[in-house]
Amino acid sequence: MNAAATRWRVSETRRVEYELCNVADVFDPACDALLADGRRAGGRRFVVVDEVVLRHHGARLAAYFAQHGVTARIVPLPGGEGGKTMETWQHLLRTLDEFPIHRRDEPILAIGGGVLTDVVGFAASSYRRGVPHIKVPTTLMGYVDAAVGIKTAINFNGRKNRLGSFEPPRRVLLDRRLLRTLPPRHLRNGVCEIVKLAVIKDAALFILLERHGAASIAGAFQGEAGGAILDRAIDDMLQELAPNLFEDELARVADFGHTFSYGLETRHEDHLLHGEAVLLDILVSVAIAHARGLLADAAAARILALVERLGLAPPLELLDATLMWQSLLDRVEHRNGAQRVPLPTAVGTGVFVNDIRRGELADAIATLQCWTRPTHDRIAEC
Amino acid sequence: MNAAATRWRVSETRRVEYELCNVADVFDPACDALLADGRRAGGRRFVVVDEVVLRHHGARLAAYFAQHGVTARIVPLPGGEGGKTMETWQHLLRTLDEFPIHRRDEPILAIGGGVLTDVVGFAASSYRRGVPHIKVPTTLMGYVDAAVGIKTAINFNGRKNRLGSFEPPRRVLLDRRLLRTLPPRHLRNGVCEIVKLAVIKDAALFILLERHGAASIAGAFQGEAGGAILDRAIDDMLQELAPNLFEDELARVADFGHTFSYGLETRHEDHLLHGEAVLLDILVSVAIAHARGLLADAAAARILALVERLGLAPPLELLDATLMWQSLLDRVEHRNGAQRVPLPTAVGTGVFVNDIRRGELADAIATLQCWTRPTHDRIAEC
Ligand SMILES: NC(=O)c1ccc[n+]([C@@H]2O[C@H](COP(=O)([O-])OP(=O)(O)OC[C@H]3O[C@@H](n4cnc5c(N)ncnc54)[C@H](O)[C@@H]3O)[C@@H](O)[C@H]2O)c1
Ligand SMILES: NC(=O)c1ccc[n+]([C@@H]2O[C@H](COP(=O)([O-])OP(=O)(O)OC[C@H]3O[C@@H](n4cnc5c(N)ncnc54)[C@H](O)[C@@H]3O)[C@@H](O)[C@H]2O)c1
Repeated sequence: MNAAATRWRVSETRRVEYELCNVADVFDPACDALLADGRRAGGRRFVVVDEVVLRHHGARLAAYFAQHGVTARIVPLPGGEGGKTMETWQHLLRTLDEFPIHRRDEPILAIGGGVLTDVVGFAASSYRRGVPHIKVPTTLMGYVDAAVGIKTAINFNGRKNRLGSFEPPRRVLLDRRLLRTLPPRHLRNGVCEIVKLAVIKDAALFILLERHGAASIAGAFQGEAGGAILDRAIDDMLQELAPNLFEDELARVADFGHTFSYGLETRHEDHLLHGEAVLLDILVSVAIAHARGLLADAAAARILALVERLGLAPPLELLDATLMWQSLLDRVEHRNGAQRVPLPTAVGTGVFVNDIRRGELADAIATLQCWTRPTHDRIAEC
Repeated sequence: MNAAATRWRVSETRRVEYELCNVADVFDPACDALLADGRRAGGRRFVVVDEVVLRHHGARLAAYFAQHGVTARIVPLPGGEGGKTMETWQHLLRTLDEFPIHRRDEPILAIGGGVLTDVVGFAASSYRRGVPHIKVPTTLMGYVDAAVGIKTAINFNGRKNRLGSFEPPRRVLLDRRLLRTLPPRHLRNGVCEIVKLAVIKDAALFILLERHGAASIAGAFQGEAGGAILDRAIDDMLQELAPNLFEDELARVADFGHTFSYGLETRHEDHLLHGEAVLLDILVSVAIAHARGLLADAAAARILALVERLGLAPPLELLDATLMWQSLLDRVEHRNGAQRVPLPTAVGTGVFVNDIRRGELADAIATLQCWTRPTHDRIAEC
């Protein structure tokens, strides 16, 4: 009404709150975690489940909802990177739109690996501008990484995770018994993200991996040491994610291993899993750090030895300096004009650098090939 | 690491901050508002502009960026509800992906009506999980409503605004000179949202409309009184939106006129504008409130008289009780299980009700037809 009213400022805060908890048997009807935060008897749930998981647990899942008097629409989704598409996202949204749920008290349930929770999370955030969802990770990658934070995504225009949102889940239910059916390659895939945390931020976790990592992989993380590794990895992840949920700070420790991997996993989508690409990136970063004199021989050797002991077998032949350079350039856009690449300076700690040169990538590849030659036994030799 | 570490709680707050300001001539190179919040010389901008606006201002816009040394990619978009689709959204995202911008300091510019700012806002929120955007409304609907808040949307599966996000703009630039080229029907369309605010929350705005509304429409809101009406409407809007940006509270005063309109504008997408549907809904709500004894004869008569004086000519023949009931049922899902319908109790104030019955809709339609018969002169007669 007055001349002064020509400028308005909106300034509010939004609370983001969610809980992650270990659950002994999430499909046991006596456990009501799956129905937390919402209408029970008489309520409805839209439940998206990884096809493989559904094969193993479908009967119990149906019984669970029946017993609680909840009408569930169970939607199977194939796992694998190929399904993380615009089409899957639209299919989910169309199916959801035909199964009306309340906007606030009938959370969508996402039960599956990282592909599933990423695409279901994006669907949940887009439907009616956001309906709540609960994540139940069923792969190790989901358990220690994809389900822990608030990032959702689909691939688009030939680029990984190009679309998505920051969408906090209502809750994350961690039942490691679900990992028992996971193929060994997918166990190792998830372990790469744990190695990432150990190398760049947690020397104690590194030691746990050295001592119990191989046995834990063999036992699908069902034993006590396996549980300790998982809890510690989640602790570490949350220490990094929680204070920076929306990535206001673009120099992120959790981005270790996620600079060159981006291009690698895009190019080799059909035969390189996310964690496998991350491991390649970790090794390249180790070699660069070593060449720069940031990382001592002994530390580099210890990291390589752990990778070998865990049986991770990185496919070094896929490394390609041009591709990795392109990937770095894209990350520069993503990180708002600066490289912000984490490099390790010792086991359990690191720094950010902004001046990686193209030539360093080819050198790093050559160094890695030398380091991993069967006949080779000293880091300093290469 | 210890048995107690089986439950984690993430609890953070996110700050939402943006500014709206009146700008005298947004395309004047001396005004740097368009380049606020980002890289200037050497920077890049992805600029989405309504086709009609581009026809009027394209040359000045191009000169603006050239003069500031900013590389702009200008993307024209047709206006009209038909363009608020998944296809438009994907087209924008693909075009954006071919024109790299920094993730944080090169905000997308959205210059157009409500359709454009809704779809560009959704694209901005989805690209790399959110890049900043600035809104420049060019229609009255955008100026007093769509550009003021943080809701983005596209239509999907035959349903209006079914997908979208809450995405705060970085800034909203209000240049009412842009309204000079707006066709009369679109001026009236935007006025319906101002009438909404006047009826349900602001008796002083109602009086302004009674005194200066018709002349302001005729003069495209370029005069002093027109400016006062616009400022007051934005004040009112922000009073409602700002404390409830994410609609945590589902009983919203700003939802007045947005219950039955939803079905009407979906069914009649080709010949009913958003504001026109809102006006029909307002009138139905007035009739229901009157029939319930909530709204006095004189107040109902005054509202009808204002609508007539403003020349809004609501197409009552489109009212359809069954369609409106379906629309109400969908809103019940959207409002989490309760109707939460605002009804006016006097000019400038209202209440929420949760018990509208199907029969009341047919009665309201009959009443409205009676009230607006040319031969009729007293509300109490119908
Ligand atoms: N949002 C994030 O912060 C984040 C973090 C890390 C990774 N990710 C994403 O996660 C994805 C990779 O996740 P993933 O490795 O879990 O992939 P995935 O979801 O495709 O699962 C891997 C395979 O395991 C199968 N599977 C799932 N649960 C199983 C079980 N319990 N037993 C047997 N088989 C099972 C699936 O069907 C699939 O074939 C990538 O797209 C990556 O971008 C996201
Ligand atoms: N996000 C929100 O909170 C919100 C609020 C209200 C309405 N909306 C949405 O807004 C949309 C309606 O907005 P709208 O009425 O602006 O529609 P619109 O964007 O289609 O614009 C209407 C017409 O005016 C033309 N136009 C735009 N600027 C012009 C100018 N300066 N001069 C001449 N012509 C011009 C356009 O090309 C179009 O033909 C609906 O989809 C509605 O859902 C959103």
